[in-house]
Amino acid sequence: MNTDIPYKTYLSEDELPKAWYNVRADMKQKPAPLLNPKTLQPCTAAELEQVFCRECVRQELDNDTPYIPIPQPVLDFYKMYRPSPLVRAYFLEKALGTPAKIYYKFEGNNTSGSHKLNSAIAQTYYAKAQGISDITTETGAGQWGTALSMGSAFFGLKCHVYMVKCSYEQKPFRRDVMRTYGADVTPSPSMTTEIGKRINEEHPGTTGSLGCAISEAVERAVTMPNARYLLGSVLNQVCLHQSVIGLETQAALQKLGVKPDVIIGCAGGGSNLAGLIAPFVGEKLRGENDYRIIAVEPASCPSLTRGKYAYDFCDTGRVCPLQKMYTLGAGFIPSASHAGGLRYHGMSAMLSELYAQGLMEARSVEQTKVFEAAVQFARTEGTLPAPESSHAIRVAIDEALRCKAEGKAETIVFGLSGTGYFDMMSYGRFIDGNMSDTIPTDDELNASFAQLPQVNA
Amino acid sequence: MNTDIPYKTYLSEDELPKAWYNVRADMKQKPAPLLNPKTLQPCTAAELEQVFCRECVRQELDNDTPYIPIPQPVLDFYKMYRPSPLVRAYFLEKALGTPAKIYYKFEGNNTSGSHKLNSAIAQTYYAKAQGISDITTETGAGQWGTALSMGSAFFGLKCHVYMVKCSYEQKPFRRDVMRTYGADVTPSPSMTTEIGKRINEEHPGTTGSLGCAISEAVERAVTMPNARYLLGSVLNQVCLHQSVIGLETQAALQKLGVKPDVIIGCAGGGSNLAGLIAPFVGEKLRGENDYRIIAVEPASCPSLTRGKYAYDFCDTGRVCPLQKMYTLGAGFIPSASHAGGLRYHGMSAMLSELYAQGLMEARSVEQTKVFEAAVQFARTEGTLPAPESSHAIRVAIDEALRCKAEGKAETIVFGLSGTGYFDMMSYGRFIDGNMSDTIPTDDELNASFAQLPQVNA
Repeated sequence: MNTDIPYKTYLSEDELPKAWYNVRADMKQKPAPLLNPKTLQPCTAAELEQVFCRECVRQELDNDTPYIPIPQPVLDFYKMYRPSPLVRAYFLEKALGTPAKIYYKFEGNNTSGSHKLNSAIAQTYYAKAQGISDITTETGAGQWGTALSMGSAFFGLKCHVYMVKCSYEQKPFRRDVMRTYGADVTPSPSMTTEIGKRINEEHPGTTGSLGCAISEAVERAVTMPNARYLLGSVLNQVCLHQSVIGLETQAALQKLGVKPDVIIGCAGGGSNLAGLIAPFVGEKLRGENDYRIIAVEPASCPSLTRGKYAYDFCDTGRVCPLQKMYTLGAGFIPSASHAGGLRYHGMSAMLSELYAQGLMEARSVEQTKVFEAAVQFARTEGTLPAPESSHAIRVAIDEALRCKAEGKAETIVFGLSGTGYFDMMSYGRFIDGNMSDTIPTDDELNASFAQLPQVNA
Repeated sequence: MNTDIPYKTYLSEDELPKAWYNVRADMKQKPAPLLNPKTLQPCTAAELEQVFCRECVRQELDNDTPYIPIPQPVLDFYKMYRPSPLVRAYFLEKALGTPAKIYYKFEGNNTSGSHKLNSAIAQTYYAKAQGISDITTETGAGQWGTALSMGSAFFGLKCHVYMVKCSYEQKPFRRDVMRTYGADVTPSPSMTTEIGKRINEEHPGTTGSLGCAISEAVERAVTMPNARYLLGSVLNQVCLHQSVIGLETQAALQKLGVKPDVIIGCAGGGSNLAGLIAPFVGEKLRGENDYRIIAVEPASCPSLTRGKYAYDFCDTGRVCPLQKMYTLGAGFIPSASHAGGLRYHGMSAMLSELYAQGLMEARSVEQTKVFEAAVQFARTEGTLPAPESSHAIRVAIDEALRCKAEGKAETIVFGLSGTGYFDMMSYGRFIDGNMSDTIPTDDELNASFAQLPQVNA
């Protein structure tokens, strides 16, 4: 193999970005504002500050400042696990026999197992700086809850995690990671909140959903003294913090003298993808460069490829603000046979607007094909990928095979947002041939769309 | 904080060691030879080659060559996850309020979760190069089995893992990682070998032991066509491959202009410790430098601190060669309440001889104190450590506190050999206060010593 380019490119700690990049500043048409669910008017900072930390709200509403400095304590924490490596997938290229050059930005080398830590440490810092004592959140697969527990332990905050009940039961080890970092973890729906009690009453025996856990965590934050709620994806502030991924990727590629043709990321709520593509989209928006950008989502939860671009509730309990986004309807719950994360009914408002403007493509993939790609990647590149990240691997492989068929030596960059060490139940099902694909029917989606709020009428 | 020295020091891929370092070449008094269990004469290469790969046997018996080149395909694989970082534990130092400077060499950033991959990829390469088709091994906690599965997947070998039955049942996720890499995993004792059948008959309902799994894997290797057995610790060849850890550590420290005072590693079979300290012991042996070196072992399995330096069987089934080592007796099994790995009854012959010569210290620690250190480390330094590695953390913290009491700014380097992501059951027990310490009594050890083979008489 000709390996002029190293397997792994690490920036030095001095080269860590000193500021996050805010794509919205370069967008002519900005993402639509959050709406207050009661008044249907744009949310004010004062309203949002009842739920979120003050600085996070400022970042949420700031559509104009292109660069927002990363506070020194956050930078110091970043240095424990960042800059993350940009890896040349030499062995995968060889296995595929493709002329394409494949790179991936690997965010899994930290105990949260994913990119989630990038925003968790920022949000816990802002909470601490504001004098908050308790923070609440929800977690599904567990990466975000773990990341937030790590941030809370580091800054001395008490962390309350509502964990979707089926995950709580299926992933006791994830739960114990959070408890090791000092968090208390409650299966959701619980009897500790009004909304939890109501959901338990209306749906006895329910194993919960992310939307429902969000509702509980928000209720807990607004009813507990000196507490705030922290969210791990979807919001502008989270996409902002995740821009550290893309900024490092951009800097590493520039150092190598490599210009990507295609940039690929998986998208659930969208923060990982938004962070990876941010500076590249910036170049597109400013007319400096062009790239193909592909968002990959599960065929069982296809918000971009089959959703409506409309105002919808961010949570099942319908207590959170409304956001204009590609959505399957706040009541949509992917089939129980759906294995990975990426099960959110909506999509980041910022990504939704970029998609609506034609600045990126979207593709949905079936989970058995995703796990095929995951296993191939693990066996050639060593690292066992998260099922979520493996959506991006699937499309990276498909694009590399297209390059092979077309005889093109394109450069493909994808985001490997995390590792799959806590997802072995899904891998086991796949290896044993017990995994199937479920795709919602048009009728199911139309029934869900019919429940979209009236504000769209 | 004054952070002139980076948090993480990465060597470049060009700076990866090109050869492993063989400490034995610099030892005046060499480790005692392996003995054939039937003849009690030193094992010949021909005898060992019936079980092990040819090149591994050559390395096993080579007490003279100081540097053994790392084959290019092994170096290429190393580049996917090496050089590993040498990390300055700024936040742990701050939490301890110590003037000591603490560094750790982190081997957990790969899917095996530990240093085991360093030898697994070397051994699978040599098997492949020799035209072997099938390899067998045993695994306890699962790191070695995972590492070997990864190596086998990479080089296209079929891997058969005998997994200690209690681990097989308690760690289904570890099992599924190995299966994801294409290995077949059998709970031991099984009915696939004569020795397994005998043990099942004599001890109905047994949950197995590492020594028993070794016996099964060896039997399978010698009875299957074109198969060899690969071992993950204890042996000279494994210690040799692990020297890549110490060589990188030495190079990184030299780059930083730092000379350690104390070097600390955990020791089960001993390969991680042997690898970390190899070049530093070399300096001691050649009279170039002096360092305190501390081997840390569990109080529940204290081979160095309370064992006998004597010839003993390497396996419970007493089919493997005898080795002169610090041993608790091949029949010794640590209490069921012992949580981590490091449960081997003996110790690497090379480390044993270094210890006998007074070139290193040994210390045993109780597991509740180990988990206290593990949790403190996780909450300050971010990474959730393996219980095994946390033995080294415990003593690193104790030494840093000694420095604080004495007002000394010593430099402490320890090996963080792996992550604890697959050990959450133990963490859960600790957090819930359900962990206790068990230390074998003198009577128990004496009864075990009475079973040592006659060759010592």
